[in-house]
Amino acid sequence: MVSILKMKTHKEFIRLTTKSKEEIVNITAQVQHICWNSSIKEGFVLVFPHHTSSAVYISDSDTCLTRDYQKAWRKLIPEGENYAHNRADPKKNADGHLKSILTGHHIILPLTNGQLDLGLYQTIYYAEFDGRREKEILVKIIGQ
Amino acid sequence: MVSILKMKTHKEFIRLTTKSKEEIVNITAQVQHICWNSSIKEGFVLVFPHHTSSAVYISDSDTCLTRDYQKAWRKLIPEGENYAHNRADPKKNADGHLKSILTGHHIILPLTNGQLDLGLYQTIYYAEFDGRREKEILVKIIGQ
Amino acid sequence: MVSILKMKTHKEFIRLTTKSKEEIVNITAQVQHICWNSSIKEGFVLVFPHHTSSAVYISDSDTCLTRDYQKAWRKLIPEGENYAHNRADPKKNADGHLKSILTGHHIILPLTNGQLDLGLYQTIYYAEFDGRREKEILVKIIGQ
Repeated sequence: MVSILKMKTHKEFIRLTTKSKEEIVNITAQVQHICWNSSIKEGFVLVFPHHTSSAVYISDSDTCLTRDYQKAWRKLIPEGENYAHNRADPKKNADGHLKSILTGHHIILPLTNGQLDLGLYQTIYYAEFDGRREKEILVKIIGQ
Repeated sequence: MVSILKMKTHKEFIRLTTKSKEEIVNITAQVQHICWNSSIKEGFVLVFPHHTSSAVYISDSDTCLTRDYQKAWRKLIPEGENYAHNRADPKKNADGHLKSILTGHHIILPLTNGQLDLGLYQTIYYAEFDGRREKEILVKIIGQ
Repeated sequence: MVSILKMKTHKEFIRLTTKSKEEIVNITAQVQHICWNSSIKEGFVLVFPHHTSSAVYISDSDTCLTRDYQKAWRKLIPEGENYAHNRADPKKNADGHLKSILTGHHIILPLTNGQLDLGLYQTIYYAEFDGRREKEILVKIIGQ
């Protein structure tokens, strides 16, 4: 199936403030809503936090699994390590920056017929590693 | 070099069933074939598994290296850990979900003159972490 | 804000040779320069190394943090492990390939009004894991 039309772009932010330093938030409905706002039917959706101590990822819709993810990432990147970054930065959030890189920071999603083209259990999560202040996630869509 | 034309999109699935729970499959030829089917010459190719216990990545074309990758990921995310997700889910595949996030889940590739624009040794691998059932990988192309 | 125009694509390489086997290079200015060359105003920018022992990632602009990143990745993927790949390949760079996958290999960036649409501290880093020879990073832009 090949469709030929003129190109459109659309940009919007999701803004949120978590209560904890580390928190995982399901943002699937908000991303889908932005797709509807765009009126773009076919294309790609970039979900891109404007921060370096947070990330976006896709996983199963299960809050137990989000806890497993947090636990595994804390083991791989221990908060208490002697990080060079923490000597200069009063926020001492080196582990948050490294966890963001380990997760992958941003994702790009297929958009088909105006809907996020996801598998049955695929859920979009925002992973906060240095919260308690307002963060913004850019959602940019290109398509037609 | 800047080219100006109308936009096209194309979507197709790669479907496969692995024999083992964990398996690495070279899907480069199938992705290239879908690019040819699309007749799109310039753009981006999204390779996006419709599952949360598999991933797609780029690496050297060497089956020894795929074994090294599996061994390293098993060490970083041990299967036998006491995962909260495994208490609720009879498939007990928490490690598969976490390995998927660690790998990065999906990739986006440059398409130039109708060909995947890859370096000499770059090979596209599908990493299965919960196989023995049919899985589908969405390939979506936008371009002109 | 939805804009409708014809689509353009642009492709250019960043070429570099690091002095050390492992090195982190800030390439933000070079990527922005390529965006200006393209004269594309709205779209996506793919930054894609043509190699399997390097990667591109986004992080805070702090050279202390790049050292933390290198140290953390070396701990997760030890160079001296008994890798199957290293028995066949005289370069013995299995750890470099695995570190590339762990980082995520490539990134895709939003382009808005001709500028990289990044958060205040977001910096684009090239991570070299097998240097001392010329490498090329493909920058491909699609948009309008």
